[in-house]
Amino acid sequence: MNFSHSIARRHAVGFGCLAAAGLFALLPTEARAALDAEAHFVLNSFSFLVWGVLVMWMCAGFTMLESGSVRTKNASVICLKNIGLYSIAGLTFYLVGYNLMYVGVEDGGWVGSFAFLYGTSADEIALLDGREEATAAVVENGQAVMSDWFFQMVFVATTASIVSGALAERVKLWSFFVFITVLTALIYPIIGAWTWGGGWLSALGFQDFAGSTIVHSTGGWAALAGALVVGPRKGKFREGGEVRSTPPSNVPVVTLGVFILWLGWFGFNGGSQLALSGAADAVAVSNVLANTNLAAAAGVMAAIILSRPILGRIDLLAGLNGAIAGLVAITAGPDIVDHYWAVVIGAVGGALCVAGLKAMERLRIDDVVGAVPAHLFAGVWGTLAVCIAAGGDPLVQIAGIAAIGVFVFGASMATWLVIDRTMGARISPTVEALGQDIAELGVEAYPEFVLMPETDD
Amino acid sequence: MNFSHSIARRHAVGFGCLAAAGLFALLPTEARAALDAEAHFVLNSFSFLVWGVLVMWMCAGFTMLESGSVRTKNASVICLKNIGLYSIAGLTFYLVGYNLMYVGVEDGGWVGSFAFLYGTSADEIALLDGREEATAAVVENGQAVMSDWFFQMVFVATTASIVSGALAERVKLWSFFVFITVLTALIYPIIGAWTWGGGWLSALGFQDFAGSTIVHSTGGWAALAGALVVGPRKGKFREGGEVRSTPPSNVPVVTLGVFILWLGWFGFNGGSQLALSGAADAVAVSNVLANTNLAAAAGVMAAIILSRPILGRIDLLAGLNGAIAGLVAITAGPDIVDHYWAVVIGAVGGALCVAGLKAMERLRIDDVVGAVPAHLFAGVWGTLAVCIAAGGDPLVQIAGIAAIGVFVFGASMATWLVIDRTMGARISPTVEALGQDIAELGVEAYPEFVLMPETDD
Amino acid sequence: MNFSHSIARRHAVGFGCLAAAGLFALLPTEARAALDAEAHFVLNSFSFLVWGVLVMWMCAGFTMLESGSVRTKNASVICLKNIGLYSIAGLTFYLVGYNLMYVGVEDGGWVGSFAFLYGTSADEIALLDGREEATAAVVENGQAVMSDWFFQMVFVATTASIVSGALAERVKLWSFFVFITVLTALIYPIIGAWTWGGGWLSALGFQDFAGSTIVHSTGGWAALAGALVVGPRKGKFREGGEVRSTPPSNVPVVTLGVFILWLGWFGFNGGSQLALSGAADAVAVSNVLANTNLAAAAGVMAAIILSRPILGRIDLLAGLNGAIAGLVAITAGPDIVDHYWAVVIGAVGGALCVAGLKAMERLRIDDVVGAVPAHLFAGVWGTLAVCIAAGGDPLVQIAGIAAIGVFVFGASMATWLVIDRTMGARISPTVEALGQDIAELGVEAYPEFVLMPETDD
Repeated sequence: MNFSHSIARRHAVGFGCLAAAGLFALLPTEARAALDAEAHFVLNSFSFLVWGVLVMWMCAGFTMLESGSVRTKNASVICLKNIGLYSIAGLTFYLVGYNLMYVGVEDGGWVGSFAFLYGTSADEIALLDGREEATAAVVENGQAVMSDWFFQMVFVATTASIVSGALAERVKLWSFFVFITVLTALIYPIIGAWTWGGGWLSALGFQDFAGSTIVHSTGGWAALAGALVVGPRKGKFREGGEVRSTPPSNVPVVTLGVFILWLGWFGFNGGSQLALSGAADAVAVSNVLANTNLAAAAGVMAAIILSRPILGRIDLLAGLNGAIAGLVAITAGPDIVDHYWAVVIGAVGGALCVAGLKAMERLRIDDVVGAVPAHLFAGVWGTLAVCIAAGGDPLVQIAGIAAIGVFVFGASMATWLVIDRTMGARISPTVEALGQDIAELGVEAYPEFVLMPETDD
Repeated sequence: MNFSHSIARRHAVGFGCLAAAGLFALLPTEARAALDAEAHFVLNSFSFLVWGVLVMWMCAGFTMLESGSVRTKNASVICLKNIGLYSIAGLTFYLVGYNLMYVGVEDGGWVGSFAFLYGTSADEIALLDGREEATAAVVENGQAVMSDWFFQMVFVATTASIVSGALAERVKLWSFFVFITVLTALIYPIIGAWTWGGGWLSALGFQDFAGSTIVHSTGGWAALAGALVVGPRKGKFREGGEVRSTPPSNVPVVTLGVFILWLGWFGFNGGSQLALSGAADAVAVSNVLANTNLAAAAGVMAAIILSRPILGRIDLLAGLNGAIAGLVAITAGPDIVDHYWAVVIGAVGGALCVAGLKAMERLRIDDVVGAVPAHLFAGVWGTLAVCIAAGGDPLVQIAGIAAIGVFVFGASMATWLVIDRTMGARISPTVEALGQDIAELGVEAYPEFVLMPETDD
Repeated sequence: MNFSHSIARRHAVGFGCLAAAGLFALLPTEARAALDAEAHFVLNSFSFLVWGVLVMWMCAGFTMLESGSVRTKNASVICLKNIGLYSIAGLTFYLVGYNLMYVGVEDGGWVGSFAFLYGTSADEIALLDGREEATAAVVENGQAVMSDWFFQMVFVATTASIVSGALAERVKLWSFFVFITVLTALIYPIIGAWTWGGGWLSALGFQDFAGSTIVHSTGGWAALAGALVVGPRKGKFREGGEVRSTPPSNVPVVTLGVFILWLGWFGFNGGSQLALSGAADAVAVSNVLANTNLAAAAGVMAAIILSRPILGRIDLLAGLNGAIAGLVAITAGPDIVDHYWAVVIGAVGGALCVAGLKAMERLRIDDVVGAVPAHLFAGVWGTLAVCIAAGGDPLVQIAGIAAIGVFVFGASMATWLVIDRTMGARISPTVEALGQDIAELGVEAYPEFVLMPETDD
């Protein structure tokens, strides 16, 4: 299990070293380099782990957001789907995903290795066994092998989390798990190989710092394909265009979910600097966190203010989705140095999300938590906004958005259709009426509470 | 956007360097200094970000505490107020707050710069562009410009969070947002300039390590002014002195909020060492976290034990508020080296809070979550306790408490009165009876759950 | 309060130094050593604090898990028990626990110092006072004194948390607090002295990296003794062997609790490397986090899949307990380099937990949250699995499991019996019928919600 691997997901290669060079010239060259390398290795690894832990926390955020958004009769199943998808993502990325995405991707290539299992390197094992001569080889990797794996693994899980919310209340539990397995083992790692893995989109110069497109649009496309295949919840869209309101069943829990996501995003974007090797990295990560917060704050305020004219009222849920859309939008370029662009990008993301919620209703596509507007629409906007705020090539950005969109939507649609024809994607009308909690699990989310009888109003 | 700025908020200036000097004398001087500076820069910046993320998490804690404490009919609006105030604080502190508090405050002065926008420095931009000769200038700042901004920004948000709880269930949404804008853009930055910004209270020697007075009493005074202007909830205080009990609607969510605050406080106090530049900083931060935990634990136990004689029963909510009061009390001096003082300071804080809850009822001031006892009373106590435990000047401490109290209470009262005369501070009796959730948002917090009919009992 | 203390809880002693030696040979020896020592001191201390904060968060996880698992009529009291136990653990470990566990334990000995209070050292105080000549002495300790205390303190609290869940809904509040005082002040520190403190089990070569046995089985044994003394909840077990189902009252809150525990476990296991002193530590910690996540994920999937044949349905609660059991199982050896063993260990842990839930029902032992299967059964398995995956001595592992089991179970049983004979361990039938929230606290957890009338079915 000792693969060499290349990480193209790196926007500031060598900054630390360059920066250090100026100052450290005062030290004997070899001493400086040696000191540098091991200290940087420790800091890179430790920061990957700390940021990765925050990203893992986002899965709890999605779970709370979704379990508070669905009707109470489906709140237990959505919890199970979420802890299941995080588990599946962690296992598949160990079994095949990481290799497919990062190991042995040729320059400009399409896909990595089809080998099974990933793990700590032979040099690292030697070092752990006390063979100190392995240190130089270990340190040359830049960070501990599994610290990088851990950080990348939680990203896959984020992609998968986006899908569960959109399809809540009507997709079968095991069908959902099968789709998540395909998404995390194949679909995401393949487009990941094109980009962060060093493949053809990376060679073209596609820019997506922490994954507005690679993670969030991917999740959004996969969710959209699923939503089209399983169809809307019964009663959501009436004859004549009327849309039934489906308010969240537990607003404080939804709000908690959004705060968790916001917090986790600091790891998501901050860790995507991929290093803490010197002053330049420290500066970049600090700018990233500040911009991330500014964009989210602007997304909230834009969504709250615009919800009045667009949706007819000041809207908490629009505000909460505005935070997420602002965060998704800044994710492609959170390292910009003109911070007012973060405010603009986040505000436009929030506005787009509110408009997108309306558009989805017009298109009669049922997306329980607004995952498509928040992750796909804002993700596309963020990936384009990099051109405005930081000077990327618009054509390359559009090419990347389109290529990833076509592949992910197509592969997801094919997977959902196969699932639908074989095991069935959608629960039966009886299960839907009873609720998945009772019918599939036998565990209600709030069994002691008296609930309103459901009406067909 | 390249301002020079001074940070007076620093209790252990040069400790790292001093400490290092002893050992590092073995290295050639220039080499040592160079190594020192960049490594310290990275560690200072990274620790600012990690601690700052924990402090951001406190906003989620306040949100949970408050949304579980209010009646269900106002639980959605309090969520919106909280995500809104965090967003507003983040934007105003970028637009004007940081400059007003930290940039160009004269020694012993009253206020900083009125310039707009704050951001990464020209040197940092040069370094990010690969101009390595900028490293020395960047590193001389001590930490990345925006890592400090991020850490200070989350403190403003904490101050604002304190207000929302006290005024819950009766203050208008947009009026609240207007007040928060004034508080975070002007009131807090001005008293911040007097103290951490290096102004006149700092020159006098006022000691407030992480903000018992600067953050918590400020929030408490602002909340108290608001509570006096908007008045108590209808039915809270009866003719003849009877006080209507208003129990929290969701106790587990309140408890979660307190645990979140406790956790976030490790960042709040730990990060206020403002550096991780050597052994002395590491020792100080470790003492800070240990003392913070001891004070909170003592606050809980004191409040639980005293709640029986004072309130007539063992009281969970007193215990939870005791944790907060213990944390607030230790915040002015969490770096004390005699840890038993942390136990004493926290226990007295918890006791004061229980007594304060009773006193507020006697004074017929309605403070929904006990923000004034927990943040203002315990904050004053903690700021005085520094004199006992660590030898500060009592007169200076009293002067600081009084000056900040007078200014914050006066400015807040004026702001609330202007708001009340113009847009109105308080919701109408109809909205109050219906609940803000339905009347202002159209979104109930728990729409599927059957709730008790409200009685006028 | 300046004790010398030895930390045997260290699996990778000197790796950092060894590893560094190879590279750093290029530097003048003294310079290297000096640089090394202070930088390592800072990184060790900071990482102890960061990981410790995550472990503290586990207490919130247990609180959510438990308050969502109990019936609503006991949900407030379980919140109070949890914030109380965390407070008590923090105070006793400062007063006596740390000294008893870590200070002055003789090689192969049984117990540490009976001195009161623990705290920062005289050398550290000197350094904080600016006496830079103290640096070498301070740095020689490896980490700041209180950073280690903080990290060890949160472990005691974890042990205590395990007990509250098992005994929920029937143990008296103050009786519970008395037991927790004995557990955290005496029982845990004593077996801690045998192992991590450097005592006789440590001398034998007992391996338990982060505490599958030392923390989790200890909590499980203490819970089991308590469950036997207080007996099952009224109506749980019927004549004729029928078992009454007692579903959780708030499933999203239980799920949140499990996500919090999973997140906190990264600190629990990651911090148990006890150092961040070089490349080898960084590699080890990275492997630990990856393995921890793999084991938890495997535990979830094994439990979900096996719940169908064993419990008759796909079971969310089994899945959630499977995560915890997977985490407990990997805790004894999360530093293994063959990651597939983490998958196996976690999956077996999850399976054991599902079978254990069934077995506990057969034995008619009422364990409200499944603490005994998840922490004790999986803890024993994990401690044995170290032999398979990393080559420990099975006889020593069995000896350690048995000795700790006999002592903890015996001491806990004696303590519970004394409590029962004096103040009474169990609430009265009236209190049990009414619920502890109303009867003991007068605070219902969800006072505005209409709840189902309880049936004796």
